[in-house]
Amino acid sequence: MASAVMKRASSTLLGCLRQSSAAARTYASLSVGTDIVSAGPNVSLQKARSWDEGVSSKFSTTPLKDIFKGKKIVIFGLPGAYTGVCSQQHVPSYKNNIDKFKTKGIDSVICVAVNDPYVLNGWAEKLQAKDAIEFYGDFDGSFHKSLELTKDLSGALLGHRSERWSAYVEDGLVKVLNVEEAPSDFKVSGGEVILGQI
Amino acid sequence: MASAVMKRASSTLLGCLRQSSAAARTYASLSVGTDIVSAGPNVSLQKARSWDEGVSSKFSTTPLKDIFKGKKIVIFGLPGAYTGVCSQQHVPSYKNNIDKFKTKGIDSVICVAVNDPYVLNGWAEKLQAKDAIEFYGDFDGSFHKSLELTKDLSGALLGHRSERWSAYVEDGLVKVLNVEEAPSDFKVSGGEVILGQI
Repeated sequence: MASAVMKRASSTLLGCLRQSSAAARTYASLSVGTDIVSAGPNVSLQKARSWDEGVSSKFSTTPLKDIFKGKKIVIFGLPGAYTGVCSQQHVPSYKNNIDKFKTKGIDSVICVAVNDPYVLNGWAEKLQAKDAIEFYGDFDGSFHKSLELTKDLSGALLGHRSERWSAYVEDGLVKVLNVEEAPSDFKVSGGEVILGQI
Repeated sequence: MASAVMKRASSTLLGCLRQSSAAARTYASLSVGTDIVSAGPNVSLQKARSWDEGVSSKFSTTPLKDIFKGKKIVIFGLPGAYTGVCSQQHVPSYKNNIDKFKTKGIDSVICVAVNDPYVLNGWAEKLQAKDAIEFYGDFDGSFHKSLELTKDLSGALLGHRSERWSAYVEDGLVKVLNVEEAPSDFKVSGGEVILGQI
């Protein structure tokens, strides 16, 4: 059932997006060897939190260097909270393998999306994934813009979001990078794939 | 406790936003007498739904005339799903009074926000408000732009959203309009206030 739903979701979204994707596909400036911190020197992310926590934190943000410098990070990006592939496959593929990531010495597994941190928090709680994965919002898309990983998904009523991607980043340097050909695909950006690459 | 949290949330967000709001406050073009359909002739909203329902509907949208023409509508707009005043006061003030709106002959009570329809659906389900209220997304802000009710709430990590407002609309014509002075306020846009105006 879930599989059937996914295939249907995937093929319909592909119907919307594949053609423009094929015609206008530009590969991200992000590549193996990129310093993800230097690529966005003024970029910050917003740790997922409740509105009340947002208020208590004075709406603080987290500079990229605080996330990546001196650490081994697995990060994955997806088109949006509460969408199909993201909820049913992408996040679970990391959540369910979190012990294997820790065994490999990964400091944090991070999920990032062009959503505000309160929406992302609500979704992470619904997926019961907050204990395993750190969620960060990129509410204005500036992180994904700095990596040229943005995507217009207005055809799916989402607006300007991101590609579906994953990376292994050591001390800010990209060591492994996977970007799906279309955001509806789930072939290379899942937890199992990157586990075999690090 | 909830009251204390609200006061804190309100005063901190005010701290962020009041100054710019006072300095740059521009009143909406929307006013009593406005034809809300003619104001956005090409604008559609997106009915809140799950991702799978979005796929099944082929990502359909709803033209404004289908929502407003020939109907008595109470509509309220708010800065975002999963934010404080919206979750704890604004939506409940309509949900808890839905029978009174029906007694007054209102066809639908509608909540609209600059969110995608899947996020809005997740939030409506969490608030257990879907049976009482119809939720519509304005994912690209085009509805609020057509009414000049947009607001930059980047200081609260939300980006470009909307004012907090409510209106009573008969056959597309605005009969009653309430716009809060600041989006963190909850003085004039609640369910109880508009109940006394219609």
